[in-house]
Amino acid sequence: MSKYTEPRILSGFLELLPNDQILFNNMKNVIEETYKEYGFLPIDTPIIELSEVLLAKAGGETEKQIYRFNKGDNDLSLRFDLTVPLARYVAMHNPSLIFPFKRYAIGKVYRGERPQKGRYREFYQCDIDVIGNEKLDLMYDAEVPTIIYTIFKKLGFNNFTINLNNLKILNGFFGSLKINYEDASLILRIIDKIAKIGKENVIEEIKNLKITDDKSITKIMDFIAIEGDYKQVISKLNSLNVSSDLYYEGVKELEFVCDNMHKLGVPYENYKINLTITRGLDYYTGTVYETFLNDYLSLGSVSSGGRYDSLTKYYTDKPFPGVGMSIGLTRLFAKFKELGIIKENETSSIDVMVLSLNQDDEAFKLATKLRTDGIKVDMCYLAKGMKQKMQYASRLGIPYVILLGEDEVKNNLLAFKNMYTGEQVSISYEEAIQILKNR
Amino acid sequence: MSKYTEPRILSGFLELLPNDQILFNNMKNVIEETYKEYGFLPIDTPIIELSEVLLAKAGGETEKQIYRFNKGDNDLSLRFDLTVPLARYVAMHNPSLIFPFKRYAIGKVYRGERPQKGRYREFYQCDIDVIGNEKLDLMYDAEVPTIIYTIFKKLGFNNFTINLNNLKILNGFFGSLKINYEDASLILRIIDKIAKIGKENVIEEIKNLKITDDKSITKIMDFIAIEGDYKQVISKLNSLNVSSDLYYEGVKELEFVCDNMHKLGVPYENYKINLTITRGLDYYTGTVYETFLNDYLSLGSVSSGGRYDSLTKYYTDKPFPGVGMSIGLTRLFAKFKELGIIKENETSSIDVMVLSLNQDDEAFKLATKLRTDGIKVDMCYLAKGMKQKMQYASRLGIPYVILLGEDEVKNNLLAFKNMYTGEQVSISYEEAIQILKNR
Repeated sequence: MSKYTEPRILSGFLELLPNDQILFNNMKNVIEETYKEYGFLPIDTPIIELSEVLLAKAGGETEKQIYRFNKGDNDLSLRFDLTVPLARYVAMHNPSLIFPFKRYAIGKVYRGERPQKGRYREFYQCDIDVIGNEKLDLMYDAEVPTIIYTIFKKLGFNNFTINLNNLKILNGFFGSLKINYEDASLILRIIDKIAKIGKENVIEEIKNLKITDDKSITKIMDFIAIEGDYKQVISKLNSLNVSSDLYYEGVKELEFVCDNMHKLGVPYENYKINLTITRGLDYYTGTVYETFLNDYLSLGSVSSGGRYDSLTKYYTDKPFPGVGMSIGLTRLFAKFKELGIIKENETSSIDVMVLSLNQDDEAFKLATKLRTDGIKVDMCYLAKGMKQKMQYASRLGIPYVILLGEDEVKNNLLAFKNMYTGEQVSISYEEAIQILKNR
Repeated sequence: MSKYTEPRILSGFLELLPNDQILFNNMKNVIEETYKEYGFLPIDTPIIELSEVLLAKAGGETEKQIYRFNKGDNDLSLRFDLTVPLARYVAMHNPSLIFPFKRYAIGKVYRGERPQKGRYREFYQCDIDVIGNEKLDLMYDAEVPTIIYTIFKKLGFNNFTINLNNLKILNGFFGSLKINYEDASLILRIIDKIAKIGKENVIEEIKNLKITDDKSITKIMDFIAIEGDYKQVISKLNSLNVSSDLYYEGVKELEFVCDNMHKLGVPYENYKINLTITRGLDYYTGTVYETFLNDYLSLGSVSSGGRYDSLTKYYTDKPFPGVGMSIGLTRLFAKFKELGIIKENETSSIDVMVLSLNQDDEAFKLATKLRTDGIKVDMCYLAKGMKQKMQYASRLGIPYVILLGEDEVKNNLLAFKNMYTGEQVSISYEEAIQILKNR
């Protein structure tokens, strides 16, 4: 046996080389900055919680995936999402919180899934939620998808569609047909396959469920066939004769959300109503969202969420309704890399390398000054020749190098080299700062 | 039994309310930005690793504190620092890395210590290390404490001292007295108490160890009594008659590091040589650092580190020497809060709240425009009066409110209110942007 332990990591865990880590962090920063721009406040909950607390709701599939263990007398689990910790946080700290409570959380969560391509056991979620004390204005249902829009625009996408629905419409509609929501879920799961298996097979499969009669199935097929821009869909939904107040409440809410998304700056072409999206019918109660990149539909929804009546029901009888959405950053980043969506050139987090030609003291001062002006500066302390130092800068992908020799110091100029084009100019400190700040 | 689970977290885990979280994140950002300013690249390793890999080196106290458990066939552990994962990372990825490899890592680590005040079981470490391939230039030993200096300056401190030592001096000195380093450690641990128990008791305790003779003890006491600015200490060290090449190599290195720290911008008053600091004698091999806030000495060292010969010795026979330092952010933040060091006013991460007086559409547009200009904007969608909305802004600590009514829209002006002073002025969009950007 070797005296060395083989250095390796577990499958299902993503670990990046520095250049990719910079790209990953850039995406994370875009998301975090946008959350902050919309007035969301940060929270950071522990990764380890008491199993009793974390699994108050869980069951079935979730529970099987948990990383759960004992330490001392405590039965502990690693968080598997950021929603349960938020619920616990709000139930615990609500007297100290200001409502509506707009919080963001970006952190690692853990699911011990069977490892498969595109699935991770440790991954970053980036969540926002707005939590109301007893009630929460519907405008927040419009703000949340506006943030989805802003983020994907900033990430460089134009051709994406935020799909909206309202579960009151579904619950009202199926209720009017005397179909409960477990059965409705089964039907909707079949409808989900319509693009793949075709309308006739969908009808056949629904019939085979023996849940409902042919007349209702026709109504269902008419309902899910409703298409058009959101105003047309709303108009058609209003024209259906559905004997359910909940249904019309849902239509009204959905119209309000769609109208206000536009007012908040989302172009009409970036969202639509999709009556077949449901998220979890047991958790969400009103507006729901899914987001698709139209050139990369195979990714599935890249950001999903919705409105729920009670976040904290396992911890307190006080109702805290909310609306939120989540971005699964790790999976998204890995997919973007795989599909070549992320541009990999000019990724250096370093702006410039300062190299000295026997002018070390001046070079040190220059680096310190540049840093004080907010520039990211590397130096190369290798006891090697200029050629090796330039190679080091080049291999690191640093875009600019400043060479400081006797002449430069004397003339108060900098030899400023663009490492991509090879062009070298003699410029003042102020000119250099300008170029570096405009990177 | 209640149908509700009591919402609570484990002891030893720090969870903050949003305002404190903002302060915490601000500190974290200062550290991260400084690491980036000095050309360090980010890596982010998994929190869960194979126990075999993570504990290749560990033993004793460390091993007892580990969160360790089985999942499927795997024996897993949560990382207890960021150094072992770095060693594993370098051993695993070195063919793809560019050396000297300057990496930073900021993340949570886990130690299941007995809970006590000021100790955390989950805490953030903020590490930098420079790793060389086979060798690493001594200038990096000077760069690392320069970064410590820059960070604590940016955090608002002036009165702090970076203590430096070089273990070659200690090993050489004790070696010349035929004292091995386990015994030297015992002696140094006693010396560490000198401020508390006095010189006479220190001598008595060293005698009681029965490791060495009185003559050597006198030499040791003379050695550790060496004081002054670093140039004086170097001069006195050079004047001692120590029969060890290693000793003089260490003195030379320490002089080089101290000289270059000044050239890199650290004022003389912010560092000194302290011959009694050792860190772990089994791990560090050259330069070592500890940093003390002189007005808060009870905090102990707020940033420590040093030079080591081989980072990866448990994973590969290739030598990767390095130098680095670490800041224990969670403990530091908690202590700063407790001691009132952190200023808590004007902590809002939100720049401005836009409120509409029946001009919703214009207010939405204004908020979108401000955000595009990089301003952090909240809106209040409560179906409530202006008074409640102002109160909401005030309770959130938002510094400015823009009121948009019919007159403002007509005259293309903004009613701009400073929430701290109560002063309200009518200004243009450009003027408002100027104020908000200068916050």
